[in-house]
Amino acid sequence: MTVSPPRRLYTAAEMQRLFAPRSIAIVGASATPGSFGAVTLANIAGPGRFEGPVQLVNARYPDIGGRPCHPSVSALPETPDCVFVAVPRDAVEGVVRECAQRGVGGVVLFSSGFGETGRPERVQQQQRLVAIAREAGMPLLGPNCVGFMNYGLGIVGTFGAASFRGKPEAPAVGLVSQSGAVGAALAQAQEHGLVLSHLLTCGNASDVDVADQVAYLAADPACRAVACVFEGMAEPARFLAAAALCHEAGKPLVVHKLGTSARGAAAAVSHTGSVAGSHAAYRAALEQAGVVMVDEIEALLDTTSFFAKAPRPTARGVAVAAVSGGACIGLADRAEEQGVDLPHPGEATMAALERLIPEYGSPGNPCDMTAQVLATPKQLHECFEALMADERYGALVVAHTFAYEAATARIETLGRAAAEHGKIACNLWLTQHLEGPGAWESERHPNVATFRSMRHCMAALAAWHRRADWLARRSEGAARLSAPDAAARAARLIDASPNATLTEREGKAVLACYGVPVVRERLVQSADEAVAAAGEAGLEALPALPVVLKVESPDIAHKTEAGVIRLNLRTAAEVRAAFDEVMARARAVQPPARIAGVLVQPMVPQGTEIMVGARVDAQFGPMVVVGLGGVFVELLRDTAVRLAPVSAAEARRMLAELKAQRALAGFRGAPPVDLGRLAEIIARVSELAADQRQRIAELDVNPLICDGERIIAVDALIARGAAAAQGSDRGASRH
Amino acid sequence: MTVSPPRRLYTAAEMQRLFAPRSIAIVGASATPGSFGAVTLANIAGPGRFEGPVQLVNARYPDIGGRPCHPSVSALPETPDCVFVAVPRDAVEGVVRECAQRGVGGVVLFSSGFGETGRPERVQQQQRLVAIAREAGMPLLGPNCVGFMNYGLGIVGTFGAASFRGKPEAPAVGLVSQSGAVGAALAQAQEHGLVLSHLLTCGNASDVDVADQVAYLAADPACRAVACVFEGMAEPARFLAAAALCHEAGKPLVVHKLGTSARGAAAAVSHTGSVAGSHAAYRAALEQAGVVMVDEIEALLDTTSFFAKAPRPTARGVAVAAVSGGACIGLADRAEEQGVDLPHPGEATMAALERLIPEYGSPGNPCDMTAQVLATPKQLHECFEALMADERYGALVVAHTFAYEAATARIETLGRAAAEHGKIACNLWLTQHLEGPGAWESERHPNVATFRSMRHCMAALAAWHRRADWLARRSEGAARLSAPDAAARAARLIDASPNATLTEREGKAVLACYGVPVVRERLVQSADEAVAAAGEAGLEALPALPVVLKVESPDIAHKTEAGVIRLNLRTAAEVRAAFDEVMARARAVQPPARIAGVLVQPMVPQGTEIMVGARVDAQFGPMVVVGLGGVFVELLRDTAVRLAPVSAAEARRMLAELKAQRALAGFRGAPPVDLGRLAEIIARVSELAADQRQRIAELDVNPLICDGERIIAVDALIARGAAAAQGSDRGASRH
Repeated sequence: MTVSPPRRLYTAAEMQRLFAPRSIAIVGASATPGSFGAVTLANIAGPGRFEGPVQLVNARYPDIGGRPCHPSVSALPETPDCVFVAVPRDAVEGVVRECAQRGVGGVVLFSSGFGETGRPERVQQQQRLVAIAREAGMPLLGPNCVGFMNYGLGIVGTFGAASFRGKPEAPAVGLVSQSGAVGAALAQAQEHGLVLSHLLTCGNASDVDVADQVAYLAADPACRAVACVFEGMAEPARFLAAAALCHEAGKPLVVHKLGTSARGAAAAVSHTGSVAGSHAAYRAALEQAGVVMVDEIEALLDTTSFFAKAPRPTARGVAVAAVSGGACIGLADRAEEQGVDLPHPGEATMAALERLIPEYGSPGNPCDMTAQVLATPKQLHECFEALMADERYGALVVAHTFAYEAATARIETLGRAAAEHGKIACNLWLTQHLEGPGAWESERHPNVATFRSMRHCMAALAAWHRRADWLARRSEGAARLSAPDAAARAARLIDASPNATLTEREGKAVLACYGVPVVRERLVQSADEAVAAAGEAGLEALPALPVVLKVESPDIAHKTEAGVIRLNLRTAAEVRAAFDEVMARARAVQPPARIAGVLVQPMVPQGTEIMVGARVDAQFGPMVVVGLGGVFVELLRDTAVRLAPVSAAEARRMLAELKAQRALAGFRGAPPVDLGRLAEIIARVSELAADQRQRIAELDVNPLICDGERIIAVDALIARGAAAAQGSDRGASRH
Repeated sequence: MTVSPPRRLYTAAEMQRLFAPRSIAIVGASATPGSFGAVTLANIAGPGRFEGPVQLVNARYPDIGGRPCHPSVSALPETPDCVFVAVPRDAVEGVVRECAQRGVGGVVLFSSGFGETGRPERVQQQQRLVAIAREAGMPLLGPNCVGFMNYGLGIVGTFGAASFRGKPEAPAVGLVSQSGAVGAALAQAQEHGLVLSHLLTCGNASDVDVADQVAYLAADPACRAVACVFEGMAEPARFLAAAALCHEAGKPLVVHKLGTSARGAAAAVSHTGSVAGSHAAYRAALEQAGVVMVDEIEALLDTTSFFAKAPRPTARGVAVAAVSGGACIGLADRAEEQGVDLPHPGEATMAALERLIPEYGSPGNPCDMTAQVLATPKQLHECFEALMADERYGALVVAHTFAYEAATARIETLGRAAAEHGKIACNLWLTQHLEGPGAWESERHPNVATFRSMRHCMAALAAWHRRADWLARRSEGAARLSAPDAAARAARLIDASPNATLTEREGKAVLACYGVPVVRERLVQSADEAVAAAGEAGLEALPALPVVLKVESPDIAHKTEAGVIRLNLRTAAEVRAAFDEVMARARAVQPPARIAGVLVQPMVPQGTEIMVGARVDAQFGPMVVVGLGGVFVELLRDTAVRLAPVSAAEARRMLAELKAQRALAGFRGAPPVDLGRLAEIIARVSELAADQRQRIAELDVNPLICDGERIIAVDALIARGAAAAQGSDRGASRH
């Protein structure tokens, strides 16, 4: 399967006139109260809003509320940077054409009824808009979109009700939402103090899409972190490129992916025609790109705001304090659940806490400070100070159980301690506190991240450490392991096979090109040859060293199910009998299978079985999958996935993700698996998958038998072409 | 291990004077602004608060703010029902004694510094208070508690800031919180409209505890559902009794258990000295008692409020509607995650939706209604009507993405549709909307449940269906399966063994009393006897039917690790050699093991391996545990747990909980396990565990080999006494 190279991202400079215009025009501006044109005008040109010139276009009015109104874009006195288009669907194309001719910097199309209807003529109508815009080098937002907000410039560029609480001051989040309604809903977090620099939506994403918008925010200094929610995209590789721009700019990117379920993905198709894609592939690709993923939409903004405020962690440890023992317990529960470490305080810290906290409290971590400390500003400050000063901690989480008068002062005390030590404080409202003392101040404080969910808080802290690890290993070497000529040799072998699915023998030869150890074998045509091969193939001491017989056929992929495999043969008589049996079974297969002969292999002693697979994802290209073989993969779907190729170091991290990873450390008396050697083999398979992406749709090395440092592939399946990819991304064992 | 019978719950009548008093006294009432005594007085006797008589006690004042003040409880003109005590710790005992003498109905002790300090003299001081109260039949709340609120009576019985938004009107939630601060924090949900009837806290829970309080709310008609958060309790059986009272009263009980992690449990000990106990045991026991468990504290009140409003489900299906395709996708994702079914609408519904919704929307389920429908009240009403009328749906979830002016009217439209059809509507604020149009109305509407988290909403709907299933099966027969004399016979066998851990032979004999099928065996003392037994024990056709040899020793529990087991012996020579080998290994065990001989058993053919275990939990008594054997139990902890005994039907539900349950349906060519037969065997083991709880600390049947309907135990371990229970609640396979 071929994945074509993605369209390049718009540069920030190309999108500058669209998203940070010096002048705006509204086509379809209206005096009719409540109409799209009227609300858009009020949103953009109302008091305290955009300070640049706003020109209006509507042939029906000479002026609107005293502003001159022009009959067409061509008739405008000045060429606007950004044009908002609020006209009926059939008038849109003419307006876009005029804008292109006039040299406008970008257009925003509110009208719906285009590509999202799925009707061919409407899809074509949309394609014409895009063609006009691209021809003119004029970025186009929409159609069917609710527009965008650049809060710093006072631009509320939408036709509906929208939050605007003034220009952002504190560390701001830039929000990108494929769905306009979802974006507008999330942006209401500004009502309770959350600081947004932008809300960018893209509707049908016919031209500018979420990837372009993320790339734009990477370059705009108004935001310190980027939040993005989307359901799907035509070219996710563009999003990965945008993520890379965020990282170059030092901006964390936090994503919630919609459409991760079968039903959700189906709804995505009917919503914007988006293909939600494989959630596993998205997750793998985005996490490899250093993106922070949140698993519920409600966690998107609090997590991103945390990242906008948090410096790099100075320590893995997190301190937890509250005036409620119950809140301490709850936070400790969620910390453990999310993998956040709560180390005990150092001696000096402990001494300070013991001095400060009365006997019915609990100095330590978590630290139950008691209401008495809370009520005494000096003691409270000293408690925060003691915890923030401890080098074991990079962050302090404080649960606020009461949200009354004193809250504001406490937030300030907490924030001051964080600022003094260059660390982050997390304020956790145990009550869902949005209004009233302290709430607004907590959201706006540059050193205090605000959470209303213990789980979101601890998940964000865990992601913060994971991201720091990711940043630290970006310099990690990822030298190619396989031989320089591996790709060419393997390609020749694949091309030489007449089979859609390579036989085991052919598949193992391909693996061998990449240095993957495979079990020795002889292909034989008779029982006599089989017995000879069993002796000759290094099995000197028959019957002490048993052998395996397997029918070699391009038409029998699942040998165990077909009964054409015999294990553990110890005597010449057993080998002879087995040969006749498996050939008889193979000849009985319907429809008749082509039989290349019988493979004779040494019986590899038991060990830990690993499955290494690869497939070409329709959107992301080659992916590598690892799991413990057998039941773990087949019943429990316990696998780790990455874009291919991966380095050996990354392969080791894949192994560490497996739920059953303890089996690798030596289970029931088995020796521990040599993780370094195994990781290297996984990396080699991933190089194969990446190199041969044009030739191979799917590949399964299953099982790879690991006995200490002796690791060997005893079966392999390689399928070519899209058709062969069906029905087996689960890596069934076929030993 | 012995679990003593729990102290009985206070009856509601006994707690009536404490929690629903006709008159109140405040001891330590004060005129000093901000003091506990002054705030308590203002909370209880302020305008719009408790309407009954409030008497004050403080020898330092003749009156406070015009109210007469008395020198002692004895000097009060009338005997109060409920006395709040806000005096220093050392004065508490005298006050409690006076209250007891005076015949007070119940006392609330705010003072701290008692049992929670862990200091022996303080613990004793607390015990004296309890002794005085119990002697007088006077329920005692606290010490170290923040009191209680009975909002319907206007009683805000606490010494700190507290929410009170008038007397409850809509379906109310009764809230019980072990932690006062957590309870007070949660109760602030009233500020945005959530309706609470009570907040009951219990501090050190020296006398009245959360179980008593849940029992009280079961009887109080002011609430329709009960929410409870706690970290641990001395006698959880009392809580199960309280849960039963809730169900008798038709009130759902929703629980968040704190201290589910190791760190959280440690923090619980230092908080209130509570033993958090085994989370698995709590979960099993509470779910078996029909309690709804929520896994984060933030879900407690919205879930309970849902249950206070929701009628019994009329259908399993849930409909989802929004004006945002993105919100529809997100809800579909969370529905699938939580196991909520979103069936497609019926034909009539679909026809109505297609008529109502414009082309850029998506009639169906989820239903993207579009902003156009939202903006047209009649169309919106008809959309809700069409979905609510569909018999496939018992509930309708509507996501509100905008929270502006029109929200109130939309909530009313939604609630009306729900009320007309006797169903529940869930209003999901995609923005975290607490204040402003519609927010208050949404919380107060008797037919609309309010959520601010898609996950909480879908989890509540899933729990609603689980609870309905639980209610439906309460009439399910649970006839005892084992023979009437099984308990007596097994007890004799256990008592006859001299071993702390019974040998395999002894253990299997005990299992056989309960009708659990066990593998045949002979105990032999020599190689000759072993060969003879191998032939005689039904193994007519040696070497075709292989046998197993195992050393029988009370000192070797883990036979595989000790190397004293040989499988799959096919010839007399192999049996003879194996006998010598295993005896030699057994004699080499250090410290020397007692050897009873060697067991000869037929080799049971491969099949699906199941582990059935039991242990006596320190708090809940006998529990039964089921898992797939081997890696599933040992590496993945994939087990289901219940209080013993269980019925065969319950055992089947345990099997359905296993992540690896697909293995039971026939995996890799193995025949499907006979689930009815397996469930029956699990039930029998659970009867054994329950009957023999005084004799057996732990029991492991591992593996139980299942090959279709042929199911047989090939090993068993039974440990007596508390000491023997150590180090193996994981059911390691010892075949």
